Amino acid sequence: MEPTTAAEREDRVLDRIASFRKRRPRLLEDVVTLAHGAGGKSSAALVDAVFVDALRNPQLEQLGDSAALTLADGERIAFSTDSFVVQPLQFPGGSIGNLAVHGTVNDLAVSGARPRWLSAAFVIEEGFEIAQLREIVRDMADSAAQAGVHVVTGDTKVVGKGAADGVYICTAGVGVLPTAARFGPEYVRPGDQVLLSGTIGEHGMAVMLARGELAIEADIRSDTAPVNGLVHAMLGAAPSTRWMRDATRGGVATVCNELAQSTGLAVILDEQALPVLPQVSGACDLLGIDPLYVANEGKFVAVVPADEADAALAALRGYPGGEQAAIVGEILAEPEGIVALRTAFGGSRIVDTLVGDPLPRIC
Amino acid sequence: MEPTTAAEREDRVLDRIASFRKRRPRLLEDVVTLAHGAGGKSSAALVDAVFVDALRNPQLEQLGDSAALTLADGERIAFSTDSFVVQPLQFPGGSIGNLAVHGTVNDLAVSGARPRWLSAAFVIEEGFEIAQLREIVRDMADSAAQAGVHVVTGDTKVVGKGAADGVYICTAGVGVLPTAARFGPEYVRPGDQVLLSGTIGEHGMAVMLARGELAIEADIRSDTAPVNGLVHAMLGAAPSTRWMRDATRGGVATVCNELAQSTGLAVILDEQALPVLPQVSGACDLLGIDPLYVANEGKFVAVVPADEADAALAALRGYPGGEQAAIVGEILAEPEGIVALRTAFGGSRIVDTLVGDPLPRIC
Repeated sequence: MEPTTAAEREDRVLDRIASFRKRRPRLLEDVVTLAHGAGGKSSAALVDAVFVDALRNPQLEQLGDSAALTLADGERIAFSTDSFVVQPLQFPGGSIGNLAVHGTVNDLAVSGARPRWLSAAFVIEEGFEIAQLREIVRDMADSAAQAGVHVVTGDTKVVGKGAADGVYICTAGVGVLPTAARFGPEYVRPGDQVLLSGTIGEHGMAVMLARGELAIEADIRSDTAPVNGLVHAMLGAAPSTRWMRDATRGGVATVCNELAQSTGLAVILDEQALPVLPQVSGACDLLGIDPLYVANEGKFVAVVPADEADAALAALRGYPGGEQAAIVGEILAEPEGIVALRTAFGGSRIVDTLVGDPLPRIC
Repeated sequence: MEPTTAAEREDRVLDRIASFRKRRPRLLEDVVTLAHGAGGKSSAALVDAVFVDALRNPQLEQLGDSAALTLADGERIAFSTDSFVVQPLQFPGGSIGNLAVHGTVNDLAVSGARPRWLSAAFVIEEGFEIAQLREIVRDMADSAAQAGVHVVTGDTKVVGKGAADGVYICTAGVGVLPTAARFGPEYVRPGDQVLLSGTIGEHGMAVMLARGELAIEADIRSDTAPVNGLVHAMLGAAPSTRWMRDATRGGVATVCNELAQSTGLAVILDEQALPVLPQVSGACDLLGIDPLYVANEGKFVAVVPADEADAALAALRGYPGGEQAAIVGEILAEPEGIVALRTAFGGSRIVDTLVGDPLPRIC
């Protein structure tokens, strides 16, 4: 018997979210592979079987971009971390230093927090040039100033030649969470609109081209940027925003799949609405890569109730860096837990999670 | 003319602290060397010339074990980070997993904070055995449970074979700072007593012996342990405690030199009072290494006013893990900015900061 009242429909959505959240991929391998670091199914399996299994606690099990922590007096903070191992260390549009700041700032921002403070830990290869290290740290300083955060504590380790590919950087960040802010897959409902804050695919393609391993040339710069200003502008216009995530490793396809799988709802994207620069689209075509799977470092996906979607879009487009924002899809009740793309020709296809990553080591 | 009043003497101490804090070692190299990661003079020069220079802000310039941050409502938190690159990954008494938790917990604890939450970011080498990764993560879980903290957020990256010596772990931590707590070199005064929470040198020697590169065998286990319980017990008994630091890279000698150089005062240690296990002392003798320079992962140095020193010592000795605590020295006005050791034979010698580290990659 079909449920008929609004309360019954709501119950059914909550049941489905609960059952989908229990489904996690299984870890089948005996050794770590590059796919385990790619942000797709293999990564999820490793995190679940090794890290969550041993370290279990309610915040960690959320597997969010950051953990929400409540202090004794009720003030809430967000806490997040990321390691950066990108190769090459510098590429058109940015460097590992910019990524190390933006990655953590953006994780905090899409959790609804106001990013405030970062830590930075460096693992440096013996023999690394101090002049290059200075450039990378200056990029961090520029990015921190732009995002309005301070790097307040750090650590330096040096490892032998051949280890650490020059330098790895790990940042963690603390932000302040407004008491009112409530985000998460449990707030997403059928009929909500899916927004994208700008064009996709530039970061991953810029890094791949900078490696010089591909036989093509294109003028593509990384989009690495802080999104906290954009998020703040959007939340002002769309205070009921349900869910946000920055589309880094695995791209928009992967974050939409995380959304679909954590809600049991369908995420339906419109191919024609997806903003992609022509040079990115051209390079992806040549390489047979779908820009939906390519990493971004300054873009986020947001789910907003339909009655706030136009206001959210206008706020994004009116903020520097959000000019190309678009409504790119919607949330439906069916098919359960699936991301689908409505193509330009009126058809549709499933957008699955990748097991590995076509573009490794891009962040 | 000599100052005569208490106020004049206090002014003179403050002037000296200010002038000593301006003296920082200079960075002379063009490339990063292992010495830059060893925690001594070279590390300080690199941090100053590259990181502090570019990222300058008041919290970072403190160069403390953690940064003290004040939230909007006045609540204060401590924030700290450390990367761990120890080789081998497992050794008698612990593993990189234990170190990754204890290192950050202890940095927070010696800042006077109550450690609460950790982040953990893993850079894993392709091909690393998942069974070994599980053991390391279980060690983290055990250490977190013992210290009363939760690992609430994390990240996983995978790099190519040969790039990460198996696994590197970066943790960051957030703790709650009591509003009343005030610690720092600026509170240290001549006449204060120097306490050590237990025996020294076990961690560094255990790791070196586990590498199998030395021609000696000895039954030495790492002392890796959380010190937050010990710190809490001591602060209860000695609420005017001036300064604390955990004696990791570079050992007790290095942290005492940091204290002497940040205050302009003298730290006078008594050789006969320093607690060293006989097997550590024996191995150090054979290798020509001074245990004062060997890393610990569960010990801290504290400066306490003379009238609270006995109570602090009794509290430490009464707490599990603090049985071997000792008063090991005192703070004098002269010689300025110097650490000296009173030897068993009635002489004394300068305990200088090392440029590099006799025992690399021990944390």
